[in-house]
Amino acid sequence: MTQLDSARAGRITDEMGAVAAAEGRTPEFIREGAAAGRIVVTRNCARRVAAPIGIGAGLRTKVNANIGTSRDEHDLDAEIEKARVSVSAGADTLMDLSTGGSLAGIRSAVMESASVPLGTVPIYQAAVRAADRGASFCETTPDEWFAVVEEQAREGVDFMTVHCGVTLESKRRADAAGRVLGVVSRGGALTLEWMRFNGRENPFFSQYDRLMEVFHEYDVAISLGDGFRPGAGADATDRAQVQELIILGELCERAWKAGVQVMIEGPGHVPINQIAANVQLEKCLCRGAPFYVLGPLVTDSAPGYDHISAAIGGAVAGAAGADFLCYVTASEHLRLPSVEDVREGVVAARIAAHAADVAKGIPGAAERDAEMSRRRRALDWEGMFAAALDPARARALRSSSRPSEDDVCTMCGPLCAIKMQEQVK
Amino acid sequence: MTQLDSARAGRITDEMGAVAAAEGRTPEFIREGAAAGRIVVTRNCARRVAAPIGIGAGLRTKVNANIGTSRDEHDLDAEIEKARVSVSAGADTLMDLSTGGSLAGIRSAVMESASVPLGTVPIYQAAVRAADRGASFCETTPDEWFAVVEEQAREGVDFMTVHCGVTLESKRRADAAGRVLGVVSRGGALTLEWMRFNGRENPFFSQYDRLMEVFHEYDVAISLGDGFRPGAGADATDRAQVQELIILGELCERAWKAGVQVMIEGPGHVPINQIAANVQLEKCLCRGAPFYVLGPLVTDSAPGYDHISAAIGGAVAGAAGADFLCYVTASEHLRLPSVEDVREGVVAARIAAHAADVAKGIPGAAERDAEMSRRRRALDWEGMFAAALDPARARALRSSSRPSEDDVCTMCGPLCAIKMQEQVK
Repeated sequence: MTQLDSARAGRITDEMGAVAAAEGRTPEFIREGAAAGRIVVTRNCARRVAAPIGIGAGLRTKVNANIGTSRDEHDLDAEIEKARVSVSAGADTLMDLSTGGSLAGIRSAVMESASVPLGTVPIYQAAVRAADRGASFCETTPDEWFAVVEEQAREGVDFMTVHCGVTLESKRRADAAGRVLGVVSRGGALTLEWMRFNGRENPFFSQYDRLMEVFHEYDVAISLGDGFRPGAGADATDRAQVQELIILGELCERAWKAGVQVMIEGPGHVPINQIAANVQLEKCLCRGAPFYVLGPLVTDSAPGYDHISAAIGGAVAGAAGADFLCYVTASEHLRLPSVEDVREGVVAARIAAHAADVAKGIPGAAERDAEMSRRRRALDWEGMFAAALDPARARALRSSSRPSEDDVCTMCGPLCAIKMQEQVK
Repeated sequence: MTQLDSARAGRITDEMGAVAAAEGRTPEFIREGAAAGRIVVTRNCARRVAAPIGIGAGLRTKVNANIGTSRDEHDLDAEIEKARVSVSAGADTLMDLSTGGSLAGIRSAVMESASVPLGTVPIYQAAVRAADRGASFCETTPDEWFAVVEEQAREGVDFMTVHCGVTLESKRRADAAGRVLGVVSRGGALTLEWMRFNGRENPFFSQYDRLMEVFHEYDVAISLGDGFRPGAGADATDRAQVQELIILGELCERAWKAGVQVMIEGPGHVPINQIAANVQLEKCLCRGAPFYVLGPLVTDSAPGYDHISAAIGGAVAGAAGADFLCYVTASEHLRLPSVEDVREGVVAARIAAHAADVAKGIPGAAERDAEMSRRRRALDWEGMFAAALDPARARALRSSSRPSEDDVCTMCGPLCAIKMQEQVK
């Protein structure tokens, strides 16, 4: 039985109990959300992660960090370090998006070293296998795609992105959409390339029931990828994107019927004033399924600072109801991220997620901020560090510039407003 | 005649013409906005800045960088470097908030070296003068306060923050508000300290007409400071803050009657879901006067990353109609910012302002993003760098990690979605 099967049967699993404890909710709240598809409890039954997590309505907004090699850069140690740094900076999940080196080796090393749920995009491995034998991805067979999914499920991957919404129907609308930047999803582009070459429907769509069987067997959550997500603000919320989302909504219901847990992936690049509408649209078209947004970036013009563009979009999306934020690093659009990029990217996404949680009224979020404010009022620096999202960084900045009076900082010195008001009392 | 006087008389000044050219608007659009008080054209008539700027409705969202010494750190060269770096990173204005060393010397050096409009908070200088002679700020006389305002106006300061809304009435509501963090505005705290000690009304409120005469004479724009701005999310949009804003709205109209240009300062620390309401409130209570927000920070819990917390809040505020964003650096709440903090703070605020402009439909903003997207589609790296907000940073990140195929980057390599779709064609 999957978590969804159990929830529907009225059974509270150990995982639901653990999620409830971590979130300050009742086990019944989690079970009810899981039964309705509003909450995903990620846990491949072939893998024991330290702490299962819940993603969805009424829960803390979660953060995913993408790690993984590329064809040009594949240093296993660096990726393991990125995994470690991500978790220590507060990432709730990892996705291993490796496309270079030994994919299975990297994945198993990451799963051994990191205790958080792990996601993948299986089609990458099918593509890498084809390339390794000198073949084009277009020559791969649907059976090879399914073989990768099954292998990764057996290994214990907790959630997988599959681009089932890239279909002949959505492709037709995408072709007519007149996009500035076209398709920017790697999985989406691979699928389209295969469909065009073979003149056939996307096998992950035409054989969706077969996919559901694998996902159900291992209780892998399906993350329905958005192959037509906009990669430019100019392409946001266009007919290609919304057509795909309609199809994802239909596939979401089929997954639920099959007892499979579902998340829906969302953009990408979206101007601020369209973000709330995008979240609302997903919640309506996909009947409340958790929304997993990739950013979104609120401007295209800031390469080198996309962690900031994405933090803005992620915070706005989260406040509007998005449940799961995929971080973006400063190196996005420019290179494979460094370890430090990954750390900063996770912190920026955590700020966005927490700011969203304050707005959403998630239990404990506003109280966390209030505790920091009380420590500020008391000029209690150790208390401030302890309440900080990144205590080490806060401490380092303050330590680098010693004030002449110990209770204030070098910004205001004796003109500290907080100190002045205490003196008046 | 001030810019406001001229605009009302139907006269388009050279400054309005320059602003119109810079903004892609007609001179009449600027004159009309200035006449209605929706647009401020900052220019002290005793100073010739290279390019006057317009702040307000229908114009590009502007960014201010605070620089200046403190009692603990006063290195003139460092502050001049901060001014230079701010302008080169795209700050539209500077505020010199110095409170250590020779204040007049720093101010004149900044005015000589930087060609952007300069703002100050004159009460700081009155406080420093009192401290320099070993006196308490409470012992200063209203004449000393006014003397500083007049001196700075004569020197050419383009806009000044004056905390006229800290009155016996707003103080009474603030005392009863039960705030977590109380008063965090330095100018507000100084004013309150003086009022409590002397048992008198704030001279900048009780002698507001006298203040208006000075501002009118030099055409200094008044930036009505928010002494009761929330310094904690828990204190946001409380009765103290809104009471002061009501008073600022009244003072705004009195300034307009006196021919003085006005901006209204706003928070501070505000949860995301309250930001749009704060902007709307200002636009209503202050009849469309430009709104100058200090951040706002969407969480209190991220010291060391407050440039990110502020970029989120600033983008949301700007998209909702705020006109002018005061940057916040990573060192906020911890120390006087370094030169690099200042540079990063300006970039983060520029990202927020630009993202807001895309949402606001400011001429050219979405087109700028679309140009970047076209360069991405063409895999034209030099074009991407040229379109980037910070070309040097984008170039440096890409250069540090060379792909084996020159047209892509090391993130995706041959799996680049953009390259794949071009190959299919």
